[in-house]
Amino acid sequence: MPSVGVVGATGAVGTVTLELLAERGYDDVRAFASARSAGSPVAFGGQALVVEEATPEALSAGDLDLCLFSIGTSGSRELVPHAVAGGAVVVDKSAAYRLTDGVPLVVPEVNGNRAFENTGIVANPNCCTIPLTCVLKPLHEAAGLRRLRVSTYQSVSGAGAAAMERLRGEQPHEHDLRMDWDFDGVEFDEESKLRDETRKIMELPELPISATCVRVPVMVGHAEAVWLETEAPLSPHDARELLAAAPTIRLVDFPSPGQSAGIDDVLVGRIREDPTDPNGLVLFLAGDNLRKGAALNAIQIAELLLSRAAVAA
Amino acid sequence: MPSVGVVGATGAVGTVTLELLAERGYDDVRAFASARSAGSPVAFGGQALVVEEATPEALSAGDLDLCLFSIGTSGSRELVPHAVAGGAVVVDKSAAYRLTDGVPLVVPEVNGNRAFENTGIVANPNCCTIPLTCVLKPLHEAAGLRRLRVSTYQSVSGAGAAAMERLRGEQPHEHDLRMDWDFDGVEFDEESKLRDETRKIMELPELPISATCVRVPVMVGHAEAVWLETEAPLSPHDARELLAAAPTIRLVDFPSPGQSAGIDDVLVGRIREDPTDPNGLVLFLAGDNLRKGAALNAIQIAELLLSRAAVAA
Repeated sequence: MPSVGVVGATGAVGTVTLELLAERGYDDVRAFASARSAGSPVAFGGQALVVEEATPEALSAGDLDLCLFSIGTSGSRELVPHAVAGGAVVVDKSAAYRLTDGVPLVVPEVNGNRAFENTGIVANPNCCTIPLTCVLKPLHEAAGLRRLRVSTYQSVSGAGAAAMERLRGEQPHEHDLRMDWDFDGVEFDEESKLRDETRKIMELPELPISATCVRVPVMVGHAEAVWLETEAPLSPHDARELLAAAPTIRLVDFPSPGQSAGIDDVLVGRIREDPTDPNGLVLFLAGDNLRKGAALNAIQIAELLLSRAAVAA
Repeated sequence: MPSVGVVGATGAVGTVTLELLAERGYDDVRAFASARSAGSPVAFGGQALVVEEATPEALSAGDLDLCLFSIGTSGSRELVPHAVAGGAVVVDKSAAYRLTDGVPLVVPEVNGNRAFENTGIVANPNCCTIPLTCVLKPLHEAAGLRRLRVSTYQSVSGAGAAAMERLRGEQPHEHDLRMDWDFDGVEFDEESKLRDETRKIMELPELPISATCVRVPVMVGHAEAVWLETEAPLSPHDARELLAAAPTIRLVDFPSPGQSAGIDDVLVGRIREDPTDPNGLVLFLAGDNLRKGAALNAIQIAELLLSRAAVAA
């Protein structure tokens, strides 16, 4: 069993990361967070771990095989290099390294082999990009993606534990759609991330993608309305068969975030022709943004690397 | 001042209809609802009206000039003909007559002149169709609509007072996206309504339209993410200028249902190029589904008819 460090252990994704590691039987796990949380306990299966401060010294001490980072982008830029210097392989869930040349951006079901090209860091994609590419992959292999439009229904847990607390404190008449991302004058960074990351993962650097991202007052689970156009015709029936056979996908009639919360699969449904486009398909997907959209995908990347290491050893 | 009957006076839309009529100075107003509510009071400005039972006899008695119906489709099918027989002009907010040949389906800013072609009934469109056509009209006139894709973020008040009560009683972790419409095996009736009604109002019977409708846990206000393609190129800048000059439209940076609740304008923003389509535009809109999306639009139709009647008299 590898020695695993969870950095950002008290956040929304870090908490789920610890839960999933405990479920999977990891026993050499350490929890790291900011000085503010150091010394406090976090749940790890039936036990509690005492949070250690995530300092450059602690992370570079050389006693961690694997580090799962879920802190902000600036925090990752500062601390990830220290963990790599200490010899750990880092799976980073921030946006810091996702588009960096030479850093693999990985969804195991989609481009798992890229993970082995890492030089210490593998980036975990955005929580909307992961379920989307799981759905696009089998359709692209069968018919070739030509164009993609996506509108999102993203839960507040994607904005972190504080946003979840805020929703808990709201009266229902105060609930609203939010757009709590950086705006560049044309679009939100969440929208350009979805485009740039999907292109990198799918290895389709020119794929035309238009995204409209929206935060909805739901606690956990992101949904996406997708219009896609393929090079070859692809019927809803054939798309359904391809998706039914694809890993991580579960076909349901009407996917919703609530249904997807707490499970590992990406739910897909409402698959139908796009009446505006002869080679167009419309579908709706939902996935747990804290699990497959973040913590689970990162652990799957780590386990892919560990399995290769185990074979080599 | 005409004698006005509000049928469905205790519902989510009926309540707002009474509020708007009081604000506008109507004083000869009667409230009708089912037997269950008959005899109970409803607010009308500072006063209360006693609800009368909406029977065929009461509605056909001949003492109403105008009837504003906001009851279900089957109720409208049953009762609207009696009000018409009694000599009232009916503005019906259900789906009963919207697609009926010879019944005008009207958004005053878009196709107001059609209202005068009525033979007793004018239909009020779906709560998503009204704000959408207000936005499409000036863009279509300038550049010609060729194709339309819409995904909706519809508030629970669109599903009526009981759905609002249910949201009030939910814990935040129970909030989910809902799809509480009839499904025909391919799409929801809400999605086909949006397509069929938009085509009828815009007088573009072949316009390709693909809609994905979703209910979000927001109390009041519907939002829509829109992709549109035009015959002639239309820049975001020109679209913004056209919309700024259009009636009922208010340009804002990031429209949300919460911002739109309680106001009469349709909010439009996030107007940008669609990178997947040379003649494509992307935008986001939000409007109060109880006001412009229902009660206000119906009153505006009635006032259009009354103004013509006043000129004729």
